[in-house]
Amino acid sequence: MVPPVLYWKNNRLYILDQRVLPGAVMFLECTTADDVAVAIETLAVRGAPAIGIAAAFGVAMASRDGRTAALDASMRLVRTRPTAVNLFWALRRMEETMASLPDDGLFENLLAEAGMILADDLECNRAMGRAGAELLPPACTVITHCNAGALATGGHGTALGVIRSAREAGKDVKVFSCETRPVLQGARLTVWELLEDGFDVTLICDNMAGSLMKKGGIDAVIVGADRIAGNGDTANKIGTYPLAVLARHHGIPFYVAAPLTTIDPGLPSGREIPIEERKAEEVKRLPGGGMLPDDYTVWNPAFDVTDGDLISAVITEKGVLRPPYGPAISALFPKED
Amino acid sequence: MVPPVLYWKNNRLYILDQRVLPGAVMFLECTTADDVAVAIETLAVRGAPAIGIAAAFGVAMASRDGRTAALDASMRLVRTRPTAVNLFWALRRMEETMASLPDDGLFENLLAEAGMILADDLECNRAMGRAGAELLPPACTVITHCNAGALATGGHGTALGVIRSAREAGKDVKVFSCETRPVLQGARLTVWELLEDGFDVTLICDNMAGSLMKKGGIDAVIVGADRIAGNGDTANKIGTYPLAVLARHHGIPFYVAAPLTTIDPGLPSGREIPIEERKAEEVKRLPGGGMLPDDYTVWNPAFDVTDGDLISAVITEKGVLRPPYGPAISALFPKED
Repeated sequence: MVPPVLYWKNNRLYILDQRVLPGAVMFLECTTADDVAVAIETLAVRGAPAIGIAAAFGVAMASRDGRTAALDASMRLVRTRPTAVNLFWALRRMEETMASLPDDGLFENLLAEAGMILADDLECNRAMGRAGAELLPPACTVITHCNAGALATGGHGTALGVIRSAREAGKDVKVFSCETRPVLQGARLTVWELLEDGFDVTLICDNMAGSLMKKGGIDAVIVGADRIAGNGDTANKIGTYPLAVLARHHGIPFYVAAPLTTIDPGLPSGREIPIEERKAEEVKRLPGGGMLPDDYTVWNPAFDVTDGDLISAVITEKGVLRPPYGPAISALFPKED
Repeated sequence: MVPPVLYWKNNRLYILDQRVLPGAVMFLECTTADDVAVAIETLAVRGAPAIGIAAAFGVAMASRDGRTAALDASMRLVRTRPTAVNLFWALRRMEETMASLPDDGLFENLLAEAGMILADDLECNRAMGRAGAELLPPACTVITHCNAGALATGGHGTALGVIRSAREAGKDVKVFSCETRPVLQGARLTVWELLEDGFDVTLICDNMAGSLMKKGGIDAVIVGADRIAGNGDTANKIGTYPLAVLARHHGIPFYVAAPLTTIDPGLPSGREIPIEERKAEEVKRLPGGGMLPDDYTVWNPAFDVTDGDLISAVITEKGVLRPPYGPAISALFPKED
């Protein structure tokens, strides 16, 4: 069984340390918001919805020391990672909730709010799963990238949630998981998570997806998202964009599964999404141990942007959006006057 | 300086062990054709032209024990790897030469023939380099994949030969090298080889090439080849085909540099090229050491096939071929009546 991404116990937040999966199932004990921030920065917890949830608990934890401490915590947490918008959404929700709360019982109420963010996310994933499952044929083989599963969310998952829900609906789904260099979230997390739940999963290197599509038998590509602009352009783990171009080349549907908290409707296009560049060491680590020499440059963007027009559908908890995404997204986020 | 892929000394063949590069520069001492076969199978020596050259030396070595031993060695060596056609070409050249030779001095003559295969390959690469260099603008940035360099050939390289020749012609060439999972020939060999020769090289993961092309500033993709069918379909290291699809999507020229010995004119299309599938362990090795668990499937094709119509030009020692490749290749390999 897949363990929870995080849980609260004895006034501490326990975060599953995804850096050591699948070799070990260990939880980090976080006693301060800074512990949570470091867990996010170092990828102990990752996945757009999951980092939003973790950050919300970080703010709640800090509020034991009062309102100012909670706001300081929020300012620390907001700087942890730049691309996923769920983080900013969760922190804003915590700040807005805090503004409406009296000092008395502040901590307990914010803790409850963080718990509701977690519960809401799980609920969204189940709704997304049901909506997305209808897009898949009764027996199908899909490619997924990175980990958009229970380990990236409050549970069930976004892309893997669709796959889980399809099985619950009686469909037979086989999965190819791209390993997802450089951090190997696909190999380490998705393969493990799907095996734990008894799925038929095959690991490939990222550069093998083209051959696989050409060979035939792939019915869909399903991925999660870190931020979706108002026109449907989607930032997701590096390697997503090439999959979308390849899927288009082979006439294979390309689906993004993401809750509304991943959509940034005010952003006109993907060009405005800040793309985190991470340190060279992630790429230089060699299989079998050791590092490459130090005297050359590495470019290590953590995300890429897939143009909305390469995306066949965006699966949300409010149903399946189809292109053109501009009007579909506007309808879901009516502008306030 | 880049060491030679192999050299002959004191009646032994010394093969550069590319599995331990760039950490160590070590040579395997081969005293039998079987030693050479194992070096090819285990990727100590790799690259279509280089394995052909190594195999030729293996046959020469065996001929010390006579004609039958040399033919047995050829039969052993022909089974080492199925995709690159240069291996079969080199073994056929050795067998045909042997058929025309008397027993007296057989070994010395075959050794000389293997040396000529090596020298011819180097010469081809220089001719290819000059032809290909003309395709590049005076200042340019190119993407390459795997290692099609001095380490894959008799020297100078095919794709990297074009880059070297472009610099010799006064051009300023910057290189992005895809790491090339699972064996990391790009990260370990191409980056090292280019740094040794003072090039500006940046390492990326294979799945970052799409973002890089989208960002702009990439003038060409240049790769080598393991086998080119009569219609221009090209088998090369896994990950080549997605680069070609992405290059087409971004309007970037996609060049293949390969000697005529890589062309298999009798093969109607890429569908007939046998694609080697290698063992799961290559993919399961984790950066930082350790392996993934053992209870799931890995698909590990070593090569993919790029459709001829995605290739802007094939650079050979006889000049630059342009699509449609069928007539261009037929003209180079006139059918014998």
